[in-house]
Amino acid sequence: MKLDNTVTKNIELCFTPALLPYVNKNVKTAVVVVDVLRATTAICTAFHNGVKEIIPVASYMEAKKYKSKGFLVAAERNGIKAKFADFGNSPFNFTPEKVKDKTIVYSTTNGTQIIQKTSRFASDVFIGAFINLNSLCEFLDKKNECDKILIVCSGWKNRFNLEDSVCGGAISETLLNSGNFSTACDSVIAAIELWKAAKPDLISFADKCAHRHRLKKLGLDDVIDYSFSINLVKAVPVYKNNRIININV
Amino acid sequence: MKLDNTVTKNIELCFTPALLPYVNKNVKTAVVVVDVLRATTAICTAFHNGVKEIIPVASYMEAKKYKSKGFLVAAERNGIKAKFADFGNSPFNFTPEKVKDKTIVYSTTNGTQIIQKTSRFASDVFIGAFINLNSLCEFLDKKNECDKILIVCSGWKNRFNLEDSVCGGAISETLLNSGNFSTACDSVIAAIELWKAAKPDLISFADKCAHRHRLKKLGLDDVIDYSFSINLVKAVPVYKNNRIININV
Repeated sequence: MKLDNTVTKNIELCFTPALLPYVNKNVKTAVVVVDVLRATTAICTAFHNGVKEIIPVASYMEAKKYKSKGFLVAAERNGIKAKFADFGNSPFNFTPEKVKDKTIVYSTTNGTQIIQKTSRFASDVFIGAFINLNSLCEFLDKKNECDKILIVCSGWKNRFNLEDSVCGGAISETLLNSGNFSTACDSVIAAIELWKAAKPDLISFADKCAHRHRLKKLGLDDVIDYSFSINLVKAVPVYKNNRIININV
Repeated sequence: MKLDNTVTKNIELCFTPALLPYVNKNVKTAVVVVDVLRATTAICTAFHNGVKEIIPVASYMEAKKYKSKGFLVAAERNGIKAKFADFGNSPFNFTPEKVKDKTIVYSTTNGTQIIQKTSRFASDVFIGAFINLNSLCEFLDKKNECDKILIVCSGWKNRFNLEDSVCGGAISETLLNSGNFSTACDSVIAAIELWKAAKPDLISFADKCAHRHRLKKLGLDDVIDYSFSINLVKAVPVYKNNRIININV
């Protein structure tokens, strides 16, 4: 693991989107958006199950417009499915029967808004989760050209959250271990420490996360074991031209 | 360590002041400001050495006004002492010979501005560092009345930094171990994990901090060992009526 700037690609990490204004954006930056519970896990699952493309939209109003045009719509706020939507935010909704070769419009509390926000300055916006950890990192290492990888944890309404930070640490460590990345970012170092603490028993660590308790209260925590599983899918979703597609095909 | 809300005082933590807008401020909150390298370590040292009071000011302009009125002034930006000031930001400046029974005006890059900002909503603003860890926590446990302790890490220009986060974890763990505090805050849990990782060899861990390298470049890293030492002083500085005084006398 290199902790200096002698190699080409630098890694930085934002623990919440509220910290994005303080990131240097003057170099070619590929962003990785992480929203483990549940947006980015759900998006990776959808591509694993053959979805053609996903259109992320920030507001319910936009999502409703697409719905009225006949699109399939996934939309949730605070963990709860929107009444007008076809799906909520659970990765288990995105089965091959429902999504294969389809276009889905998607709006969530945190994740999809950050995808749009970061696309304004990033050369590419990738979708990261525990379930696509190695495929994502392999792609970033071997096939993506940029000066910097910026991992953006979605957090919870601009606050820090554990699950995205631990996943950000897993991505950082995997990239640094390849030998082609370096970091001088305290957040990356901290995220890796959190990942090291969590790794031996990821599911028990997940039990500490505030959002896990939010989902439990809503009866939506059936996704925990799945969302904290490593390398279940090969999908590497990326946001290009207002759509998310799978670039690893 | 209690991780629920069944006891009276709650603990929350902000990794940087940029996250303050997202904290619930509707309960009686005591803030602990942490700026290990070097503002809060220097303030604790000054009180240990008998300073009468410290007036924190956000801007150089204010500091200069006080200087023209004959006050002793400590002022730095980015680690470097202001030309017009009597002291910079090193705790080693605040010797008994220089500070005993004096009033000092103090302005720094991060720390003093956050003291003023948080005093707008907090019932008390305490000054926290590794060097006053146990005295501070004992005071908060036994002598301070509030519904919530909010630890605010000063960070570096609104970015996350390691040293303040680790110190925030040390304060959190010490308070939780007393049995009179609880938390449901992911940042507190993460800070404690960082503290656990750092604790066995705090000085080596300090070597990972970006700001340690900034100070090294400036030849100002002679304070590292001192700033990362636990329980050197009994001072519990608190900001009241626009002045910092030592409440633990």
